[in-house]
Amino acid sequence: MFNRVAFLGIGLIASSMACAMRQQGLARTYVAAARRAETCATALRLGLVEEASTDPVASVKGADLVVLATPVSAYADLMRQIAPHLAPGAIVTDVGSVKGQVVADVAPLLPEGVHFVPAHPIAGTEHSGPESGFAELFQNRWCILTPSENTDVQAIDKISELWRRFGSKVDIMTPAHHDQVLAITSHLPHLIAYTIVGTAVDLEGALQNEVIKYSASGFRDFTRIAASDPVMWRDIFLSNREAVLEMLGRFTEDLAALQKAIRWGDAETLEALFTRTRAIRRGIVEAGQA
Amino acid sequence: MFNRVAFLGIGLIASSMACAMRQQGLARTYVAAARRAETCATALRLGLVEEASTDPVASVKGADLVVLATPVSAYADLMRQIAPHLAPGAIVTDVGSVKGQVVADVAPLLPEGVHFVPAHPIAGTEHSGPESGFAELFQNRWCILTPSENTDVQAIDKISELWRRFGSKVDIMTPAHHDQVLAITSHLPHLIAYTIVGTAVDLEGALQNEVIKYSASGFRDFTRIAASDPVMWRDIFLSNREAVLEMLGRFTEDLAALQKAIRWGDAETLEALFTRTRAIRRGIVEAGQA
Repeated sequence: MFNRVAFLGIGLIASSMACAMRQQGLARTYVAAARRAETCATALRLGLVEEASTDPVASVKGADLVVLATPVSAYADLMRQIAPHLAPGAIVTDVGSVKGQVVADVAPLLPEGVHFVPAHPIAGTEHSGPESGFAELFQNRWCILTPSENTDVQAIDKISELWRRFGSKVDIMTPAHHDQVLAITSHLPHLIAYTIVGTAVDLEGALQNEVIKYSASGFRDFTRIAASDPVMWRDIFLSNREAVLEMLGRFTEDLAALQKAIRWGDAETLEALFTRTRAIRRGIVEAGQA
Repeated sequence: MFNRVAFLGIGLIASSMACAMRQQGLARTYVAAARRAETCATALRLGLVEEASTDPVASVKGADLVVLATPVSAYADLMRQIAPHLAPGAIVTDVGSVKGQVVADVAPLLPEGVHFVPAHPIAGTEHSGPESGFAELFQNRWCILTPSENTDVQAIDKISELWRRFGSKVDIMTPAHHDQVLAITSHLPHLIAYTIVGTAVDLEGALQNEVIKYSASGFRDFTRIAASDPVMWRDIFLSNREAVLEMLGRFTEDLAALQKAIRWGDAETLEALFTRTRAIRRGIVEAGQA
């Protein structure tokens, strides 16, 4: 499918893509750029790529597929560096969790004849770094593409096909819609998980050990989410600010209503909500996403 | 260990206890009481008990171990019914997720010579009912006992031993301390999970289907927690009101601070918190509770 693939950033997602592409022989050469020499060494040692460099310009030279896979706040700078060196006809794609800001940052810097197909695989674990990648990460998961109206159709098809080869189902939507959907399904859950784990971290000394000891009672599920990559998530909240604040507003209203129900002993309100929420779980189990 | 064990209520926890006790032959006869005849029939069909009845008085007659395993709001009524029929020397225990209210409800109704050892196994799944029980549920989990200072030591030892036989580690603390620890490790996480899933349920039609489709991005972990038994959780929040409202207060303060950091683009505050929360996860993994 491709001749030379350049991963700019080689964390969980890019390393999983490299594993999956290698398994199926989807490219001839795999190269990676990373900010730290140590990460480059790891990527080479793991056999994810044949070339690794701290200089993204060296990586993208001659590449027909360039994958932006750093935290999203680094995209604009990266693009400014690599744009003059992108091969004509090359496809640039990304794997960022936010799409509006990414399109705003990347699109104006694209040279003529280079195609940009923004992508977001809805998959992940709480682990980060090149050691955490595995080829099956994307199987039976969705990948959302958010190309603009005038993006080359063949480029979109090629990126769609790539994700299908990974076992993903592909959806296409606008960047704005993507950001709204992800604000509720991903960004708000992470924000809340980070918050409650932070609340626990601040507890008086003795209580804190007990939080760890008795975490099997619900808390530990939040700690898994709140162990996600800090820089990546910092960027997500800052670059999807409006949608996150909107969903957070709805959440805090609902939480205030529940708080009131608890304070006033309103058993009916509590039971009614707790019954309604079960249906969503059934939907997720039926959709095979549990 | 026991002659006749009576489970009052036979949901996930009691049925798992019955499985574990049977596997090791810890009692001669197993009986259950349930409010609905259908549940009694299920318990008999699954071979969890030899006798099942909708009348708790029939169940406790001659029992040397009585396990209260209904939602906690039913304990006081149950105790009023069964108290005159409890055998001298019998041990009453429970499995409720709240302890202060339970002790306040049950202790005054205990006949002379009957021992009460409140217990709370820190284990569970999102499934409920007698079909969901399995003997391994308690393995490597904690069980917290909250006996009063004048509880018979032999009764406490016997209940401790029972939980150790299930593979659990046993801790003893006051009801008040238990309720405070569980407010942050269990009750608040459930409250928040119910809230965010409720927020999603209220979304505009089209968005709602997408929440299910893309739930793998974080949301689905919350839906699992928010699929827990509605009546049981209603009771927990109402009977541990003060500790839950205290922890909820801390949480909403922390959430407001994060909201402000997002609104003002305060990258450092976000990254600092997201880095701190990782340590708790490591603690849980090291403690074997992950």
